[in-house]
Amino acid sequence: SSTATRVIKCKAAIAWEAGKPFSIEEVEVAPPKNHEIRVKIAATGVCHTDAHAVNPCFKAGLFPVILGHEGAGIVESTGPGVTKFKPGDKVIPLYMPQCGNCKFCLSPKTNLYLMPDGTSRFTCKGKQIYHFMGTSTFSEYTVVAETSLAKIDAASPLDKVCLIGCGFSTGYGAAINTAKVKPGSICVVFGLGGVGLSAVMGCKAAGASRILGIDINTNKFALAKELGATDCLNPRDFKKPIQEVIIEMTNGGVDFAIECIGNIDVMKAATECTSVGWGSCTLVGVPAGGESVPVSPMKLIMGRKINATFFGGWKSVECVPKLVTDYMAKKFNLDALVTYTLPFDKLNEAFDLMHEGKSIRTVLVF
Amino acid sequence: SSTATRVIKCKAAIAWEAGKPFSIEEVEVAPPKNHEIRVKIAATGVCHTDAHAVNPCFKAGLFPVILGHEGAGIVESTGPGVTKFKPGDKVIPLYMPQCGNCKFCLSPKTNLYLMPDGTSRFTCKGKQIYHFMGTSTFSEYTVVAETSLAKIDAASPLDKVCLIGCGFSTGYGAAINTAKVKPGSICVVFGLGGVGLSAVMGCKAAGASRILGIDINTNKFALAKELGATDCLNPRDFKKPIQEVIIEMTNGGVDFAIECIGNIDVMKAATECTSVGWGSCTLVGVPAGGESVPVSPMKLIMGRKINATFFGGWKSVECVPKLVTDYMAKKFNLDALVTYTLPFDKLNEAFDLMHEGKSIRTVLVF
Repeated sequence: SSTATRVIKCKAAIAWEAGKPFSIEEVEVAPPKNHEIRVKIAATGVCHTDAHAVNPCFKAGLFPVILGHEGAGIVESTGPGVTKFKPGDKVIPLYMPQCGNCKFCLSPKTNLYLMPDGTSRFTCKGKQIYHFMGTSTFSEYTVVAETSLAKIDAASPLDKVCLIGCGFSTGYGAAINTAKVKPGSICVVFGLGGVGLSAVMGCKAAGASRILGIDINTNKFALAKELGATDCLNPRDFKKPIQEVIIEMTNGGVDFAIECIGNIDVMKAATECTSVGWGSCTLVGVPAGGESVPVSPMKLIMGRKINATFFGGWKSVECVPKLVTDYMAKKFNLDALVTYTLPFDKLNEAFDLMHEGKSIRTVLVF
Repeated sequence: SSTATRVIKCKAAIAWEAGKPFSIEEVEVAPPKNHEIRVKIAATGVCHTDAHAVNPCFKAGLFPVILGHEGAGIVESTGPGVTKFKPGDKVIPLYMPQCGNCKFCLSPKTNLYLMPDGTSRFTCKGKQIYHFMGTSTFSEYTVVAETSLAKIDAASPLDKVCLIGCGFSTGYGAAINTAKVKPGSICVVFGLGGVGLSAVMGCKAAGASRILGIDINTNKFALAKELGATDCLNPRDFKKPIQEVIIEMTNGGVDFAIECIGNIDVMKAATECTSVGWGSCTLVGVPAGGESVPVSPMKLIMGRKINATFFGGWKSVECVPKLVTDYMAKKFNLDALVTYTLPFDKLNEAFDLMHEGKSIRTVLVF
């Protein structure tokens, strides 16, 4: 049996409290329990969702915690009862386990901060450390539930496919699965970060004939155009609200709008720039502080609809391995999203690069 | 040719200004112009949308105007170029002409207050009177565009099928076409007036296994149950918000919520009482004063969606005759919605009965 009993000491980034930098610490990682797997993380992205979890505005987090949910690694050992994974398997931890549709999967209460049995596998300096989203990829070793893991192609480069664990899949799937972008349609993507650029790729893959990219950081426009955007606009270049500019440019509004920022005003613009009759707005970003978007029923009644995406609408266990296969077959350009690859110790710098708009994604490697 | 040249003098209800009762007046109805049809209205429903049009809160109306958009009648004469209709045809005027999807059809600017050529066919006391929604059924004779008319079964009772011109079709279609209620699903309908009860019938026709009806007027519960509601709730009977009551009753939320009131707080409740993962909220009611519904992106991200309906998502020209045929085949119970049938002169009483919650629908007959 591959059942492990040894505690592993390794490096991890701990968020001891909200609003502070992460500390790189030595942590103890307990062996996996029943139906759990210990994974040696090879690479992890950093994502705004991690930043949200330590942002005092969100007021939702438990501390101390090991964040990280966009990782890829190799199975180190398996707990009792695990049959689908063995040491050496390449894997991506899944923050949305299993079917993704059952109430259990979708409830943040059930899988955000502890293992399914209600305990933690991490300690540091004698203190229990919380897990995060069932993944905690900001640790060289992490323990995940068997249901929160996807086995992937043994040849895949972990420092790229880690982005399939969150950002890429969320944006790409928002266009393909949630918005269901149609061939020949006009799309607009608000926010050209990792998720937004993936949405641009999704719109292009779905056959959109025109893809508008919107960002206040014009440095992102060149890559957006390389990945499929046909027009890029900076809202600050216009005196009118950007939704009015978009409606004029598209002779009445877009078929599909996708918001990848999490800003309430931009969400409102996204709902309003769609065409009467059939316009669809998909919300991907998560606003701080539980704010609401003001939605005009009159605008909806004229034939528009609004939905939102979580992990791009993919069934995680089934789809993550397929997305890795598609990447290996060069069906989309994940590499373009990786601005920097840095050693794990540079975690705080990676967050700074993200907040300063200097990176699309920084991948940290152990 | 049946081309008419004669001006007809007849009875109509004129709204001279906002916030005042309607005046029953003698009006002159000009002959139909190119591709227009003059219709002798036999019966018309009264609807909250008519009340909205004279409600000072909406601030949208042009006066003086002949309202009414839920009527049925008989073709009196046709203008040049009309080929699809002839005198004697039974018809229902369509406030959403043609395809219902093109920008022209959906724009209130193009068809709300005048004929397509930008002029009116009504005068009273020497003044031009505005049309309304291309229908103006609060007149014994009205003129409509060829594209705004559906020919229906010659045997159909006009004092019942007039409701297919608006209220019935809107609610029934909201469930069937817009929400796309699935067999075995749990639904909730907010507001048990003519539109809401039609939505209940739509949910039932679509195979819903449980249909909750919500209203503060418990007098409507008996009929709601007769038409398909399995549970009826008065929000005033509960200390908690009704969405929480519904979530508890349904073990986590409904599959489909349909709002048929036009109240912002109820719309918020409707968006929130749906199940995580797949819950769908359809807005049917129109709020006063252009208010917005506060929508939580976090709740949407958990798999919910929101849309809205206009004329129940029916293609009017094609579907109205079919709905009349379905009514004649007893596929739904339109008669149950007609609380009172009164002479046209009782128009103001009909509005009073509606506002006081004493009628589902009052049909006025000439």
